[in-house]
Amino acid sequence: MIHPQLKADCHRLGHFDRCVLLLHRNAGVPWFILVPDTTVTDFLDLPAPDREAILVECAAISQFIKHRLGYSKVNFAGLGNVVPQLHLHVVGRSEEDPCWPSPVWGVLPEGADYDADLLTSWQRLLVEDFALSPASLSS
Amino acid sequence: MIHPQLKADCHRLGHFDRCVLLLHRNAGVPWFILVPDTTVTDFLDLPAPDREAILVECAAISQFIKHRLGYSKVNFAGLGNVVPQLHLHVVGRSEEDPCWPSPVWGVLPEGADYDADLLTSWQRLLVEDFALSPASLSS
Repeated sequence: MIHPQLKADCHRLGHFDRCVLLLHRNAGVPWFILVPDTTVTDFLDLPAPDREAILVECAAISQFIKHRLGYSKVNFAGLGNVVPQLHLHVVGRSEEDPCWPSPVWGVLPEGADYDADLLTSWQRLLVEDFALSPASLSS
Repeated sequence: MIHPQLKADCHRLGHFDRCVLLLHRNAGVPWFILVPDTTVTDFLDLPAPDREAILVECAAISQFIKHRLGYSKVNFAGLGNVVPQLHLHVVGRSEEDPCWPSPVWGVLPEGADYDADLLTSWQRLLVEDFALSPASLSS
């Protein structure tokens, strides 16, 4: 079960072994959110083996952002002050983005959603590169 | 070598095997910063064994924040949009803190610095609990 706030804010692209992969609807920055299947709420409270397995998936998304999308910088965070369900932010950043150099949370201005074709193409690349199990991209 | 901006913003409490341990001077929240000895600038680009060893130290600080300082929530992040040297934020949060539920970066209001005795007592606990190698707490 994904928290309703995350569902409202994000597209669901699919899942890896450990995490559901979401993409924030604000296309101003490539803002991926990974949601592991756990009841732990703080990233640093995860047992080390779980932490490492989940980070492999976060690192895959970071590589995707850098090598496929052409960003040189990736921000990583586990916060959860608003949505208690553990979720990890992996966000491509550039000096040209709408809120550089601030972090995105609460600062990224409202922005357009993704074009459906772009979403489909990113999803396809993630299937090819990292064996993402794709979700149906309904809305 | 610690980046001058981190030096200006933080007290240096000591070091673990992999990271120098800093504490942000703004005592409004317990805001620890761990600086690993690496030339990698993005957390998710670290080789997995380095990542995991560094996280053991971050998790120790999270436990300190929770069990010794009594916070139930810890934010974790690797950003580096302003200071390129890799550094990891481990921040105790509570609903009573000066910028809850926002993340701290760019939002935490100016606040008083730590009392020297409190710094010394935290440092002593970190030596006892997690074998911190203490630094001289000059200023």
